[in-house]
Amino acid sequence: MLNIVLYEPEMPANTGHIGRTCVITGAKLHLIQPLGFHLSEKAVKRAGLDYWPRLNYEVYLDYNDFLEKNPGAKDNLFFATTKARYRYTDVSFTDDSYIMFGKESAGIPEEILVDSPEKCIRIPMKPGERSLNLADSVAIVTFEALRQMDFKGLESEGNLHKLSWD
Amino acid sequence: MLNIVLYEPEMPANTGHIGRTCVITGAKLHLIQPLGFHLSEKAVKRAGLDYWPRLNYEVYLDYNDFLEKNPGAKDNLFFATTKARYRYTDVSFTDDSYIMFGKESAGIPEEILVDSPEKCIRIPMKPGERSLNLADSVAIVTFEALRQMDFKGLESEGNLHKLSWD
Repeated sequence: MLNIVLYEPEMPANTGHIGRTCVITGAKLHLIQPLGFHLSEKAVKRAGLDYWPRLNYEVYLDYNDFLEKNPGAKDNLFFATTKARYRYTDVSFTDDSYIMFGKESAGIPEEILVDSPEKCIRIPMKPGERSLNLADSVAIVTFEALRQMDFKGLESEGNLHKLSWD
Repeated sequence: MLNIVLYEPEMPANTGHIGRTCVITGAKLHLIQPLGFHLSEKAVKRAGLDYWPRLNYEVYLDYNDFLEKNPGAKDNLFFATTKARYRYTDVSFTDDSYIMFGKESAGIPEEILVDSPEKCIRIPMKPGERSLNLADSVAIVTFEALRQMDFKGLESEGNLHKLSWD
């Protein structure tokens, strides 16, 4: 099971949105506090729609709390950041990988990144442009990980080849 | 230049959001009317942020108007739809490809899809789940196209290897 980790997310709609992506892909969502909103806020559910109640998620006091409660994460944790030598398509994801994304305004703090430069990955974009929306970034990297695993566990044979006009 | 085509989009925030993705990737955005909103609406610009003024986009009266004004589209037009035999990773994109996405509530009409089943592509998702957000779907397929083209034109040598803590 793929793990999406949001480090101190600020915008409720983005997290709601990312929850929907996690449900659709079977990923678990890890939320590291402080959050910039309450999880009960309408904006979370508006973006997460009716997917949110089926979301597998966990909330942590801080980054250390996350590491303690996920002993497998340390060796299989990628950091999505604009400050990275590698593209997100350069690394190999496995189905127990953790992929962390930073807060909307500032990304993941350098004190976390500096220890694991080989685990830092970036999404290429036009020089001079700032950055993609957080929810889009999660979708892009998550689906690259799924692509590498040939979308295992997604799709059933039944729903593949039946087209309504066949 | 990659081309993103939205067929009768309904939600202003999604189109704003997709505009941002187009600016960041250098793609052109094609909007087929009717739109469910005015392009001058605040919600478009709130989601598109300060990226929107740099967006290369064009608006069409209808699907035929789009085809007439883009004679190159007919042979290189993909349809993103849940009703597809092929995955979005099964096809080969080129840098003059057009990728069309349907309206949020109903997707691309079957009368358009039925003529080009080999150009219909789907994004795999867990059986039983409905669908991804439109803006996420655009981001996922757009970045797969860019990945296939080795992200040509994105990134300058200069911004790749300079990390702030180096």
